[in-house]
Amino acid sequence: MNINNLSDIATLANQLPTVDGAAREAAQQHQNNLTKPPGSLGRLEELAIFMAGWRATSRPDIRMAQALVFAGNHGVCAQGVNPYPQEVTKQMVANFEHGGAAINQLCRANGADLSVIALDLDRPTADFTQGPAMSEPETLDAMNRGVAAVDPAADILILGEMGIGNSTTAAALASALFGATPADWVGPGTGSDAAGIARKIAVITKGLALHGAKSPMTILAALGGREQAAICGAVLAARKRRIPVILDGFICTSAAATLYAADPRLLEHCLVGHVSAEPGHRRLLDAIHQRAVLEFDMRLGEGSGAALALGILRSALACHNGMATFAEAGISEA
Amino acid sequence: MNINNLSDIATLANQLPTVDGAAREAAQQHQNNLTKPPGSLGRLEELAIFMAGWRATSRPDIRMAQALVFAGNHGVCAQGVNPYPQEVTKQMVANFEHGGAAINQLCRANGADLSVIALDLDRPTADFTQGPAMSEPETLDAMNRGVAAVDPAADILILGEMGIGNSTTAAALASALFGATPADWVGPGTGSDAAGIARKIAVITKGLALHGAKSPMTILAALGGREQAAICGAVLAARKRRIPVILDGFICTSAAATLYAADPRLLEHCLVGHVSAEPGHRRLLDAIHQRAVLEFDMRLGEGSGAALALGILRSALACHNGMATFAEAGISEA
Repeated sequence: MNINNLSDIATLANQLPTVDGAAREAAQQHQNNLTKPPGSLGRLEELAIFMAGWRATSRPDIRMAQALVFAGNHGVCAQGVNPYPQEVTKQMVANFEHGGAAINQLCRANGADLSVIALDLDRPTADFTQGPAMSEPETLDAMNRGVAAVDPAADILILGEMGIGNSTTAAALASALFGATPADWVGPGTGSDAAGIARKIAVITKGLALHGAKSPMTILAALGGREQAAICGAVLAARKRRIPVILDGFICTSAAATLYAADPRLLEHCLVGHVSAEPGHRRLLDAIHQRAVLEFDMRLGEGSGAALALGILRSALACHNGMATFAEAGISEA
Repeated sequence: MNINNLSDIATLANQLPTVDGAAREAAQQHQNNLTKPPGSLGRLEELAIFMAGWRATSRPDIRMAQALVFAGNHGVCAQGVNPYPQEVTKQMVANFEHGGAAINQLCRANGADLSVIALDLDRPTADFTQGPAMSEPETLDAMNRGVAAVDPAADILILGEMGIGNSTTAAALASALFGATPADWVGPGTGSDAAGIARKIAVITKGLALHGAKSPMTILAALGGREQAAICGAVLAARKRRIPVILDGFICTSAAATLYAADPRLLEHCLVGHVSAEPGHRRLLDAIHQRAVLEFDMRLGEGSGAALALGILRSALACHNGMATFAEAGISEA
């Protein structure tokens, strides 16, 4: 897969694989035969059936879980939108590479293979209050780096990001895609105080005024970051391979939401791992009609909430594939 | 530990270990030094700090997780309170022993050693509409079997239960302990319809009228089951060893709630793994001032929600023990 034109993306929804209804139905039937009252595993049953539909098999398994964390730097940091200096992005990438970050521990604990992809950190995107953050070729390049990063052997893909300033680009994207006011989407991010939040709102308001109404993928170029474009590319490449995706928090979801705005079907193979403490995330989940797997008051990014949800998905499939049926166990039915 | 008298239990709260405040504080300090914005791992940080306090070390680890599932049969089944025949309790115990149940898969997926303890299944408790379900010696015997089952080498204890009819005994316990009406505590259990629920309410109303106001542990004897008494014993034995406990759903929590009613401090070392779809569970969590770790619309019992929460706890400790500090990683602070 190679994405050659931003305007092609909405039409991909007509070409990419759709859920396998027969596999999903077979998985549902199998769940009903397992040694438990029907439905009593609740959301675990739904997750197993979701996996069956996308993997196109009634008994899906996770042999390989891939986690991808994309990192980018943002010109809008020149507007003072983040309390941390921009070099922290590169320092955190080194921390990922040395195994010291939360996502390293969460991938190990939940069985995911982690790759970190730093996207031109020495060349931040442009400041979106002055012009488009990325040109169309830059946006396509970042998207295709996301496409290329997806391992065709993965059974599930965890997506995360790192980038000082990207809670501002996320709120800008959400505001441009779904309306409401910037104040409805802005939160503390890595730790902005009230003055910092007010500055973020003012910066986004200025960016929105500059760029006006655009198509969803053009909004991504105008206001987003390279890590967000890469996430979009990875979501699409995963769909092509029938690899379900677990999105992470506010920033990751805001990236994928540009695809939703282009065509809602483009996110049908995606779960959202958790609802973040960043206040805009719940509103964003409502806008894209998603219900998160977990709610743990996390607000770290890096794919941390998605990796945690992977453990739940593994448990869901362990039950689905490992439990005896009523007939096998010789148990009386109601 | 051996429990010789039901009236001794309230006084145990003055004798059993309390949380280690210094270890908890050291764990909090450690969390603040890790490479993330302070607090950004949300509930995962709280769980790691909880473990530190009870294990009395700033860096707690889970080398061995024990899961105990207690099974019992209930005389009140003579009143037609459950759509499944009572022999299912024994059939499900065989399913546990053969590895075919949900709890087997969830223990394997989340790294717990499972033991199943069948408590006199051929000798159900008495029908509580006719007299006390258990005598004091029977209650103490079941409690002490729970005490004896706890492995002193465990770092965490998962508790669950199996017993056809025990959503009725659970609702009866909750109603006797915390008031409100039986209808406020009764739900479908394994799958009762509206008529079945009405029957459960009538049966509990009759039981409450027969037994009147009693002390919490005497309520356990009058209305509970052996598996519920064993859960109480295991909770106390774990406390003696500073082993934190993860309680499961409505039935397991109702058992532990008798200890809470005797003295709220007796449950300070306990988490509740999930909030069940059984409607009385949320009310019960409010009554004992607990917030569940997960919410997944599960209503199976067996310790299934507690075992799922163990995976979350493992992730919490993986971050706590494995992450680099800002100083170690050379990362600029805000």
